[in-house]
Amino acid sequence: MRTTVGIIGGGPAGLLLARLLHRAGVDSVVLESRDRAYVEHRQRAGILEQATVDVLRACGAGARMDREGLPHRGIELRFDRRAHRVDFPSLTGGRTVMVYAQTEVVRDLIALQLADGPPLLFEAPAHAVEGLDGERPLVRFTHAGRERTLECDYVVGCDGFHGISRRSVPEGALRGYERLYPYSWLGVLADVPPSCEELVYAHSERGFALHSMRSPSVSRLYLQVPNDTDPADWPDERIWDELDARFAIDGDWKLARGPITAKSVTPMRSFVTEPMRYGRLLLAGDAAHIVPPTGAKGLNLAVADVVVLARALADWRATGSTAGLDAYSDTCLRRVWRAEHFSASFTSTLHTAPDETPFESRLRTAALDRIATSRTAAAELAENYVGPPLAPAGRAH
Amino acid sequence: MRTTVGIIGGGPAGLLLARLLHRAGVDSVVLESRDRAYVEHRQRAGILEQATVDVLRACGAGARMDREGLPHRGIELRFDRRAHRVDFPSLTGGRTVMVYAQTEVVRDLIALQLADGPPLLFEAPAHAVEGLDGERPLVRFTHAGRERTLECDYVVGCDGFHGISRRSVPEGALRGYERLYPYSWLGVLADVPPSCEELVYAHSERGFALHSMRSPSVSRLYLQVPNDTDPADWPDERIWDELDARFAIDGDWKLARGPITAKSVTPMRSFVTEPMRYGRLLLAGDAAHIVPPTGAKGLNLAVADVVVLARALADWRATGSTAGLDAYSDTCLRRVWRAEHFSASFTSTLHTAPDETPFESRLRTAALDRIATSRTAAAELAENYVGPPLAPAGRAH
Repeated sequence: MRTTVGIIGGGPAGLLLARLLHRAGVDSVVLESRDRAYVEHRQRAGILEQATVDVLRACGAGARMDREGLPHRGIELRFDRRAHRVDFPSLTGGRTVMVYAQTEVVRDLIALQLADGPPLLFEAPAHAVEGLDGERPLVRFTHAGRERTLECDYVVGCDGFHGISRRSVPEGALRGYERLYPYSWLGVLADVPPSCEELVYAHSERGFALHSMRSPSVSRLYLQVPNDTDPADWPDERIWDELDARFAIDGDWKLARGPITAKSVTPMRSFVTEPMRYGRLLLAGDAAHIVPPTGAKGLNLAVADVVVLARALADWRATGSTAGLDAYSDTCLRRVWRAEHFSASFTSTLHTAPDETPFESRLRTAALDRIATSRTAAAELAENYVGPPLAPAGRAH
Repeated sequence: MRTTVGIIGGGPAGLLLARLLHRAGVDSVVLESRDRAYVEHRQRAGILEQATVDVLRACGAGARMDREGLPHRGIELRFDRRAHRVDFPSLTGGRTVMVYAQTEVVRDLIALQLADGPPLLFEAPAHAVEGLDGERPLVRFTHAGRERTLECDYVVGCDGFHGISRRSVPEGALRGYERLYPYSWLGVLADVPPSCEELVYAHSERGFALHSMRSPSVSRLYLQVPNDTDPADWPDERIWDELDARFAIDGDWKLARGPITAKSVTPMRSFVTEPMRYGRLLLAGDAAHIVPPTGAKGLNLAVADVVVLARALADWRATGSTAGLDAYSDTCLRRVWRAEHFSASFTSTLHTAPDETPFESRLRTAALDRIATSRTAAAELAENYVGPPLAPAGRAH
């Protein structure tokens, strides 16, 4: 096979890139290693920044999101048994976020792609990327039991942290920056209406908890747990009791319980690779950077990457100029490091580290108190949470 | 001897408290262990918050400060060989700071006290505080070769981190929160006009450096050094070379050199004791809390403490109500923990930890970049730096 842009990975980054390129008249092929059902059901993030919402709408993928998504105008912080709301529009000049699960975004993009888009191959695992130093790189993949090749002008790695794209780059050409956290999230899906209208981020002496939602009838709840926790050690009753304890405030609030339909433990990692490019390979989304989920930045960073990249590829295709592609990594890394800093800070502020000192616990309370009492500190949280605008078109040129 | 308020320690906290009490008609005695020359010459902080300036003026100790002090409307941050100014008035609704050395504040307060104030005894080391659980506590001290006692209604410990006041409290009655830092400051005084109009806080790969000043002809400069550094290992030439390297920017700037007249190494510590009271003993300033010097908060916290305390003591004297005294610790600790959080964050953001990872170095750059590019983040720094207003009178009642 031959195409202009070979995209490895059919998650939100790869699918959105294909969509944006299609609308710009640039052809591509998406290779996804898993089958469609798997891709459409894996649970991931659920908070879309304003900029992400705008991009999805602009590329025609916003109809169901606008019908079923839940616009959120703030979050609630809980600590010391008190609740404090952070109001986004008044702190950020009108910006908000949308609760709409990544898995729904993926379904919408797959449907569009299969309806009128360029090829999207499921169960097509790439196993080698070659010729990155030349002008015609090649992706070797398997499909329908056959070994095949995809010859392209550019390869884009959208295959996540564990994918083959980044690992295809020669040793020493990229530098990785990483932090592992001494705790994980136990996440559950429950068939019960959310007990809150907005997300609740709670810190208690027992650790962090997050109340989120997938829809008006499905709650998404998380508990900080030690690394290597076995979900089997957390029967439903224990989960609800622990959530109750961590969300407790002095005042009237009750957590509604319901059937838990999914339960999983996710470790937390911060990771950035620099640059986000090697020769004719460009990395986007989780293939290039990972954030802990606390700030809800992962999906939004992936969207920001591919918006910059689609513009750069379209520009190269139209004019032959590689200026946009040459600036791709630097342009994206500015936003990436901002999100990395925010995600790491917000994570540390809300979680209890196993080895933290009493002094550090008090600093955390001071940090949360400041957000609760200072408009400036609340605005700093809100601006980071709703995310910056996307880099304006043409900036890289 | 007998007095209403026995004050242990004749630093800025003790002297200002005596002054404020005197103006409120409450008598006191200040016991200072060192001689006057020593107290008037020890080098300490040099940045007065707006609130501190206001208090000194209001109690008649502002005349020389207003003549000789240097009002500063911002600071400069340097990192990645770039300089970025943080403008205080435009970010904080008009607030500024004053560069006027603590040692000058102490001289002014001593002169006032000796002119018309209550007793201030030099070379009068307190060695025991007794009867704190009763109504007539007693301070045992030595003066002019004699053992003496000071009987009071309240004792105020203003004798610093190593003083006897806090150590007189029964084991277990107070809780200490502490952090030690893996670096110290090598500070020098130099007879050379400052090379900058405002303070310069610089982070480079070689570590932190600060350019401050004591007057238009005296510079005060600091270098981050490892703990247990011997100043003898830092001949003047080495100090200037290292300062040059850490302040270097791409652009026109030159550090003027001159004779170094003092050189010392100071370790960094964060410390808070809770509560700031035991029975009839009240702790103020460094006796109750220590901050690393990066945020210039130590002296300002001491001033904030004694303003609250003087009001509470005057109120008790006038009405018999202990409401203000009972609220003293909680009132002060709100400001203290805010300053502790700011000081610890600002310190960590500007210093290189010996064991920091490349990821952490990049997070620091992201934090500094944010301040340089976001009005909100710059305002958060500026508001913390200029300090909050003092707690309004009567708030505790």
